[in-house]
Amino acid sequence: MKPMGPVPPWFSAEEGMLLIGGCGAESLVDEAGDTPLFVYDMGIVEAQVRRFRAAMPEAIDLHYAVKANPFAPLLARMAVQVDGFDIASGGELEIALEAGMAPDRISFAGPGKRTDELTAAIFAGVTINLESEGEARRAIAAGAAIGKTPRLAVRVNPDFDLKGSGMRMGGGAKPFGVDADRAAALARMVIDAGADWRGWHIFAGSQNLDPQAIIETQAATIALAARLSDAVGATPPLVNLGGGFGLAYFPGDMPLDIHPIGVALDQALATRAAILQGSRFAIELGRWLVGEAGVYLTRVVDVKDSQGERFAVVDGGLHHQLAASGNFGTVVRRNYPIAVANRFDAAPADSPVTLVGCLCTPIDRLGDKVALPPVEEGDLMAIFLAGAYGASASPTAFLGHPPPRELLLG
Amino acid sequence: MKPMGPVPPWFSAEEGMLLIGGCGAESLVDEAGDTPLFVYDMGIVEAQVRRFRAAMPEAIDLHYAVKANPFAPLLARMAVQVDGFDIASGGELEIALEAGMAPDRISFAGPGKRTDELTAAIFAGVTINLESEGEARRAIAAGAAIGKTPRLAVRVNPDFDLKGSGMRMGGGAKPFGVDADRAAALARMVIDAGADWRGWHIFAGSQNLDPQAIIETQAATIALAARLSDAVGATPPLVNLGGGFGLAYFPGDMPLDIHPIGVALDQALATRAAILQGSRFAIELGRWLVGEAGVYLTRVVDVKDSQGERFAVVDGGLHHQLAASGNFGTVVRRNYPIAVANRFDAAPADSPVTLVGCLCTPIDRLGDKVALPPVEEGDLMAIFLAGAYGASASPTAFLGHPPPRELLLG
Repeated sequence: MKPMGPVPPWFSAEEGMLLIGGCGAESLVDEAGDTPLFVYDMGIVEAQVRRFRAAMPEAIDLHYAVKANPFAPLLARMAVQVDGFDIASGGELEIALEAGMAPDRISFAGPGKRTDELTAAIFAGVTINLESEGEARRAIAAGAAIGKTPRLAVRVNPDFDLKGSGMRMGGGAKPFGVDADRAAALARMVIDAGADWRGWHIFAGSQNLDPQAIIETQAATIALAARLSDAVGATPPLVNLGGGFGLAYFPGDMPLDIHPIGVALDQALATRAAILQGSRFAIELGRWLVGEAGVYLTRVVDVKDSQGERFAVVDGGLHHQLAASGNFGTVVRRNYPIAVANRFDAAPADSPVTLVGCLCTPIDRLGDKVALPPVEEGDLMAIFLAGAYGASASPTAFLGHPPPRELLLG
Repeated sequence: MKPMGPVPPWFSAEEGMLLIGGCGAESLVDEAGDTPLFVYDMGIVEAQVRRFRAAMPEAIDLHYAVKANPFAPLLARMAVQVDGFDIASGGELEIALEAGMAPDRISFAGPGKRTDELTAAIFAGVTINLESEGEARRAIAAGAAIGKTPRLAVRVNPDFDLKGSGMRMGGGAKPFGVDADRAAALARMVIDAGADWRGWHIFAGSQNLDPQAIIETQAATIALAARLSDAVGATPPLVNLGGGFGLAYFPGDMPLDIHPIGVALDQALATRAAILQGSRFAIELGRWLVGEAGVYLTRVVDVKDSQGERFAVVDGGLHHQLAASGNFGTVVRRNYPIAVANRFDAAPADSPVTLVGCLCTPIDRLGDKVALPPVEEGDLMAIFLAGAYGASASPTAFLGHPPPRELLLG
């Protein structure tokens, strides 16, 4: 028996059936037409936005990192919930604009922006978070070529990292942004070239569950922004403090309490340096806003025994939920929370079951020796925390299965 | 400096430019229209087929595992090169038939076949490799429902594994096939139900570079097939011996010599049990046939330094070549062979370069501290061994970049 991560607190059952956004899981499959199916509950997303607003100082803007979940209906709803979108490609630029987000509230980060992407972003009036001196030169030239003043922020590789992060984005040699000791010179170059300097983007890490680590990193980020701005001799219009708010995916993970982060941030802003007095600040979140809102529903096709171990095989798999299989940036595979949707509150069987996807490869494992009610052919399985980095971050074409269905509720 | 895997022996340069199928890499990008681009050289695939035919006994059929590379133009060429296709989904059934492969030379394996996929396969006249007793019951019922006799083979989870495989598919508790001690009873059930029993499918592992391990596993597989057939009391029309032939991806990997495998297999077949005298045998290969034929070409967008480390950022990344980033079934990340395509035979620089993809995530790393000629913006990078589990096995939608281009040569 191996443990699973905790089921997020939003879910309950009615007559044994898992409810998502107040609807029974089976009826949602009927509505969508078939499994495998991603269901996203906008009610949970909006509740997370409210939690953020309630805990954070008023001066903090909330940005959504589109890469976490670019499903168009969700993006359109998100556009009116948050203060800005952060995008990472020319493709995301198009869908962000289609979702109705104003161009001057979109910023574009990513270490490998092509010149055609820079041109499209400048044409649209989007802020580009510059990742290098070379990219700055290309962006300025692209602006000149189309006769438009580019909006340029400088992404900084900070000289510290966010301790305990799932993904470290700062500290040490990194492909993201320019090292802190070159950032002021780059901002100066941007200003001298006549571009519209938009400020700093400082992203130290993501998927963190330690409030104290986030508090210290945010304080260090504000101090770094002040130091760099003093060196430039100009107030940055916006300081993007990065993200880092994590979710509890795995056994032993404790949900992040954001309340103390808001209290500390309020204090840090109240005592900030003079040069930052006129600045706005933003926190950029993807996973934390949408991750718990998503449930991946997949049907049990077969239940079988092999050498004393029980396997349940579903019609989905890593081609839709790569992260849950442990093959996306994790070293050790651990179990996401899983449930039998149609017997959500039943007691677990005496012996564990291993949940595998339908792909003909041994790495397609969604739950390893987990405790679940007895699983039968035809059961509907729910894999939680499927709202971020799910459908769009998985190899959907692998083995020629149809793409997953997606449904937005609420 | 960290080592890279060996560049496959098929590649050379003309005036510094990497040649693929006799064409310069830059001119192939011109032909395709842009980077990132997968180029597949059919000449290399056909050379691998010839190597196989020359080394293996005449009684051995060669099957192609479509999942390794389902690119339609390649599949159409493959259909006339090999003796059968092995498929893993209803989607692959469609493209296999479109490629012109005869249905009676297609077999369908996969632990989670849905009933609609079984029905489509039986209707088309394809052989189903049964993965469980439950699947057998569903297949027989599906055949009865459409009034067609299903062609059914039994996939066996062998009581041994292929030692040293990249992917272990047998030995121990597995979701694939039925345990060897239940296989004969399942075949008997299939025959008694009036289905057309096609034989055994025994797949013990893949991506193996040890000829002796493959020889021993093939001998054990033939012995197991004989034992099971004796228990059934019938000669299997076909014994699929699985695959396992690996490629040299990583530093220190030695290319697999298949000649001794053919010699040993010839001997094993000559001395096979009486009940297998009328059987045909097949080896099922994907990666080994197409892997070396593919090169992933991607353009350097930026070159930058961070804390004394040099990074080259390309317009491709793990969204096209997930396996090369080390995030697809590997525990420790190692470097695939990489070259600067437009300075293929230049001497390496004094200090290493880290090749990262354009995605805004730290896991998008294609080459870690590798020795390459000095890399400049605009250079064309070649990542080798991109012919198998590349474009179709990667999360192409991640971060909203366009899908890669694909080009078949020869």
